[in-house]
Amino acid sequence: MGTATNELKKMNNLEKSAWDGFKGHLWKTEINTRDFIQANYTPYEGDASFLADPTDATDKLWGRLQQLQKQERENGGVLDMEADVVSAANAYGAGYIDEALKDKETVVGLQTDKPLKRAFMPYGGIKMAEESLKSYGYTPNPKYTEIFTKYHKTHNQGVFDVYTPEIRAARRNKIITGLPDTYGRGRIVGDYRRVALYGIDYLMEQKFHDHENVTHGQFSDEDIRLSEEITDQYNALKRMKEMAAAYGYDISRPAENAKEAVQWTYFGYLAAIKEQNGAAMSIGRVSTFLDVYIQRDIERGLMNEDQAQELIDHLVMKLRMVKFARIPSYNELFSGDPVWATLSIAGMGMDGRTLVTKNDFRFLHTLENMGPSPEPNLTVLYSSRLPEGFKEYATKVSIDTSSIQYENDDVMRPVWLDDYAICCCVSATQTGKEMQFFGARANLAKGLLYAINGGVDEKSKTQVGPAYQAITSDDALDFDEVMAKYDDMMEWLAGMYVNTLNIIHYMHDRYFYEAAELALMDTNLKRTFATGIAGFSHVVDSLSAIKYAKVYPVRDEDGIVIDYRTEGEFPKYGNDDSRADDLAVWLLKTFMEKLEHYKTYRDSEPTTSILTITSNVVYGKATGALPDGRAAGEPLAPGANPSYGAEQHGLLASLNSLTKLPYEYALDGISNTQSINPDALGHDEEERITNLTSVLDGYFDQGAHHLNVNVFGKEKLVDAMEHPEKEEYANFTIRVSGYAVKFIDLTREQQMDVISRTFHAKM
Amino acid sequence: MGTATNELKKMNNLEKSAWDGFKGHLWKTEINTRDFIQANYTPYEGDASFLADPTDATDKLWGRLQQLQKQERENGGVLDMEADVVSAANAYGAGYIDEALKDKETVVGLQTDKPLKRAFMPYGGIKMAEESLKSYGYTPNPKYTEIFTKYHKTHNQGVFDVYTPEIRAARRNKIITGLPDTYGRGRIVGDYRRVALYGIDYLMEQKFHDHENVTHGQFSDEDIRLSEEITDQYNALKRMKEMAAAYGYDISRPAENAKEAVQWTYFGYLAAIKEQNGAAMSIGRVSTFLDVYIQRDIERGLMNEDQAQELIDHLVMKLRMVKFARIPSYNELFSGDPVWATLSIAGMGMDGRTLVTKNDFRFLHTLENMGPSPEPNLTVLYSSRLPEGFKEYATKVSIDTSSIQYENDDVMRPVWLDDYAICCCVSATQTGKEMQFFGARANLAKGLLYAINGGVDEKSKTQVGPAYQAITSDDALDFDEVMAKYDDMMEWLAGMYVNTLNIIHYMHDRYFYEAAELALMDTNLKRTFATGIAGFSHVVDSLSAIKYAKVYPVRDEDGIVIDYRTEGEFPKYGNDDSRADDLAVWLLKTFMEKLEHYKTYRDSEPTTSILTITSNVVYGKATGALPDGRAAGEPLAPGANPSYGAEQHGLLASLNSLTKLPYEYALDGISNTQSINPDALGHDEEERITNLTSVLDGYFDQGAHHLNVNVFGKEKLVDAMEHPEKEEYANFTIRVSGYAVKFIDLTREQQMDVISRTFHAKM
Repeated sequence: MGTATNELKKMNNLEKSAWDGFKGHLWKTEINTRDFIQANYTPYEGDASFLADPTDATDKLWGRLQQLQKQERENGGVLDMEADVVSAANAYGAGYIDEALKDKETVVGLQTDKPLKRAFMPYGGIKMAEESLKSYGYTPNPKYTEIFTKYHKTHNQGVFDVYTPEIRAARRNKIITGLPDTYGRGRIVGDYRRVALYGIDYLMEQKFHDHENVTHGQFSDEDIRLSEEITDQYNALKRMKEMAAAYGYDISRPAENAKEAVQWTYFGYLAAIKEQNGAAMSIGRVSTFLDVYIQRDIERGLMNEDQAQELIDHLVMKLRMVKFARIPSYNELFSGDPVWATLSIAGMGMDGRTLVTKNDFRFLHTLENMGPSPEPNLTVLYSSRLPEGFKEYATKVSIDTSSIQYENDDVMRPVWLDDYAICCCVSATQTGKEMQFFGARANLAKGLLYAINGGVDEKSKTQVGPAYQAITSDDALDFDEVMAKYDDMMEWLAGMYVNTLNIIHYMHDRYFYEAAELALMDTNLKRTFATGIAGFSHVVDSLSAIKYAKVYPVRDEDGIVIDYRTEGEFPKYGNDDSRADDLAVWLLKTFMEKLEHYKTYRDSEPTTSILTITSNVVYGKATGALPDGRAAGEPLAPGANPSYGAEQHGLLASLNSLTKLPYEYALDGISNTQSINPDALGHDEEERITNLTSVLDGYFDQGAHHLNVNVFGKEKLVDAMEHPEKEEYANFTIRVSGYAVKFIDLTREQQMDVISRTFHAKM
Repeated sequence: MGTATNELKKMNNLEKSAWDGFKGHLWKTEINTRDFIQANYTPYEGDASFLADPTDATDKLWGRLQQLQKQERENGGVLDMEADVVSAANAYGAGYIDEALKDKETVVGLQTDKPLKRAFMPYGGIKMAEESLKSYGYTPNPKYTEIFTKYHKTHNQGVFDVYTPEIRAARRNKIITGLPDTYGRGRIVGDYRRVALYGIDYLMEQKFHDHENVTHGQFSDEDIRLSEEITDQYNALKRMKEMAAAYGYDISRPAENAKEAVQWTYFGYLAAIKEQNGAAMSIGRVSTFLDVYIQRDIERGLMNEDQAQELIDHLVMKLRMVKFARIPSYNELFSGDPVWATLSIAGMGMDGRTLVTKNDFRFLHTLENMGPSPEPNLTVLYSSRLPEGFKEYATKVSIDTSSIQYENDDVMRPVWLDDYAICCCVSATQTGKEMQFFGARANLAKGLLYAINGGVDEKSKTQVGPAYQAITSDDALDFDEVMAKYDDMMEWLAGMYVNTLNIIHYMHDRYFYEAAELALMDTNLKRTFATGIAGFSHVVDSLSAIKYAKVYPVRDEDGIVIDYRTEGEFPKYGNDDSRADDLAVWLLKTFMEKLEHYKTYRDSEPTTSILTITSNVVYGKATGALPDGRAAGEPLAPGANPSYGAEQHGLLASLNSLTKLPYEYALDGISNTQSINPDALGHDEEERITNLTSVLDGYFDQGAHHLNVNVFGKEKLVDAMEHPEKEEYANFTIRVSGYAVKFIDLTREQQMDVISRTFHAKM
């Protein structure tokens, strides 16, 4: 342990080397990346004219990578897989995109030994890891079957060792869905910038200090667990040093220039994606931070804009290469091979200055220099107060590439302050200070059907929920009666759901702890407990139908309601009609309140989201007919989107409905995806940019949370579906619920789902 | 899951087969072995004349086993070791003492594939498992080095991942000693009889039921842990069936006769010693239970006494064969390769009937049929109300073999009821209903020195305890000042000790959970948290010296007290002198109270013991000079024994001092070991039996807890030390603190320690 004197001495050395020229105090006496940024960054209020074209190195490397991606697609979606090495930060030596182009890689580091080769990660579940290998024609190594069956239990096994019959039935009947018990929970974002700013040795010293200071007095079980975790984190930091050393870098010390800062930060992230295969593996908010280093190098004449852009292009290229081995059922849920390498840019500081720097432009510019791409999942933290030059450029790139999502910085900042990042689609976490326990979602639409059928599942016809009294009358459903029963059933659903997630997270911590990510975060973390809602718009519209029209139950021979006959009109969510929109607010607030009735793992703070990603298709398949007219088995509307066909009053009315959902009730995010015909947006680029910017300003100023913006028409999608071989569609990217995907990588079923959504032809 | 109807149907079948003739109700509707015993056993009030000599099979097998034991000794203490198979109930096929004598084995089952071959058990600590192999010239298998270093953490590593600098210093300086962090905690006794009475399938059904009923509502972390543990237990039961099947037995069903009952019970125990290498692996209390089956077979003419004795002889032979791979530091603590296969016999029932059956005679008789032996650790649960015939026979065998210990059933029964068993030396646990967290001991003598030196260790001269004000005067020590400081230091010691044990037990549960033993116990257990005291008599005598004589500190050049000069006489513990004995009671009660100040793991009930086993030598080495005159480095007196040379008033006065220590303050036991010259006990066998019986009656009627009885003179020990090769000493067994050992297996240092103890030459 360094004494205070040693630390001071070391700091004096740093003042002359790595930290030379950097201002500020607090970040030098404790790990505090935000304080460093605030003290040193240069806001940029100009336009995009400074940006540089791709260098020859970028073109060559990206060209090679596109060849590899093509091979991967031709190969059935997977280029290569590992069966013989258990992935870990230090499991491999150095690897490059192409040995022949090795010295062109400004930022180095692969997940395995070869580009796009998927690592073997058995800790989450040996069965899944092996199923994944077999799905793509690879043979599992029996050595690991033995180890992870006989000697080391995995997360998946641990969870199933505890599940109750009630939970198993709920899961099988898909009233709780997509649970992270057969895949990693993900959504934990290390503060990868710490590697650059402090170097690994200082981070290890601090973890050592934390280990010695877990408690002064007696250890509770929780203290013991934490103490062991800190040791695991400490060891993960050691592995990171070994990993970097294999590439010839000594990351024990802080980065001394921009190239090192980018490289060190990426190494931190690389360790995470070598050790974990969580559903979402976001890189966080690195743009403004890295700009400080680039700005210093430029001012010192050590770097020009070409080099700066190359550095960012190469970092982004690496983020476009992140791959995990998945199983077919996972791909059904999350289609198109996403990894949510979410990168958050822009935003405003708490002091009123914008956090936009030139680097935020550079990250957007990668979509032009290397074309559109679903990864990294580019997220603009939006505020109408962002510099006009930036807003213009972002919307321009959005219109050209449909690869950007926008999230409301003005509603998130009061909750998560100004150094949060998006850790998946729409979920914010404070960088380095907060982790999230991800919890997939409860199907509230099915919950409504259970309320009507007394807990009997409408598809399997088995008792899944509690055997409360069902509605037995064949009269039109009574709104008050349905609401009372739905309230009871939601209470059960919330409790059972929290219970299930508590088991999952206990076992994830036990068997697949995220040591590499958590090593780059504070030891004493804030923890949130994310839940989610599926079928949102359908419940709202169904309740509206019951209230404002006449809904008659249609029963099978056993008296179970399996369909509904609706007479009369009723208001629908997505039309700026308070009668429906009030029900939407009620639903969100009520479910959130019910979740809060239950104790959540590690005293975490419960939150919820309205987000389904592409799983709306799978969830819909498992859900019977609904009173809103949606037929059994049809996809649910994604996220918080209005139901297909419900929106009758144009884009703005639809957006207005969304703005009424308070972010405070859904701190894990409210996802909204809209597709706009280019013509609806304007007649030329300038008009489109102006209009889109003003749509975003208005939408977010009213308090809405999120918008995925797609600018294309239905015809393009149909053509791409029919002619995926066309060169122009190779990188054709669309935003779906919370992430982006290459359209041709979706299944035909999901392509059809996207095509059937509303394309706003008018504002 | 069997429905109630199914269970009843099955029971009706059992009434006609396995349970035919058995009385009682409760044990048929729940797992309740005690109720079965109470309803069916036949107390025996007669003498030993019915006993049978060894059969030819017994002689042959025991002869072969003695050859193997001789080879083992010649081979340096270990006959063979496994390096290539990780031990588990189902890790091996069938194995026999001697293939050629296979059909003579009435009770089958080895720990590994060969007799006396030690299994490989890495879960407690891969380093220790490998050190053990290397100590005896075996080469560890690198496969397991990799698995248990890279993929699966072990108990030992988990503990050291959490230890604080304070704990590490306390451990290094040996103020807390012999902690089960480099060996298994042991002391968990499965109710092995359940296998015989119920068969594995019913036990699995019940565990399945328990799993589904962990809680009706939300799972706490503790519920999740328990639920996973039940699954682990369920899987352990499966492995037991596989293990038995390899020997051609189907233990899924209950035992149908005496031979099966013994075999099934042993299989339960065998699974435990295949899966765990805890310091103490006791078989518990099986005698009365098995007698019910033997009695039924005898009454039905299916068995005669020769066969009955053979069955018990063969079971005991198996218990004499239990071996574990140990490391040198373990052997220093627990000398002579003990395993504490403690077997508890006799005792009185709560209804006033004796629990002694013919079988209790048969177990004692094994010491005659096969000669003395340290294992199984034969423990008589004593009461003056035991049948005279049994008391006479037990004391006779005691005098002949020095292989028996006695524990006071009359003080234990009110606490643990009448189906408890001794799980190590002196620790009682309720069979199948209670588990103990074993916690080694705190060196209270060193604690006293820390009180005087302000937390500075008298040997290492480093600050180990808290830096309280030391005694700086060179005057004679002031009793009140010392007591006040000792009180503070004991408070710290108790807290730090409980903290350390909490960490150890958390990690033991996490990485080396005793699934096989706990599978044969109730799911909802009582848990006790055992601590222990070392240096007891020395603290008492030191405090007495400070109070009643003048004790001057002798300081080194830094002012640290390293020795004491005592002027005048003072009373010593072990002479029936209240002035000293009252200090003894104060010490025990005070330390116990301090332990109770701290929260113990899993809400267990803290207890303490006064017991050091052979570790008194190692503990003494680490302890400086004491005010009672004991020189630095000398062995501490073992257990609750008076200090060497302190006893000046004969055996009875010494025993009287012991009777004053309330068992209620040391529910984990109070160990007392005495050696009596045969001549002191009487002139002939009859007189010796009468006298020893009356000593035991008097001692235990006064409320003392335990007595190890050795009947031999110092000369015999000296001769055995000098001539270990003599045939007569091959099985020469002596009782040491809490267990028995072959004298020639002790180190010379420990032999010298035993020889230097008091041999009472008068009563």
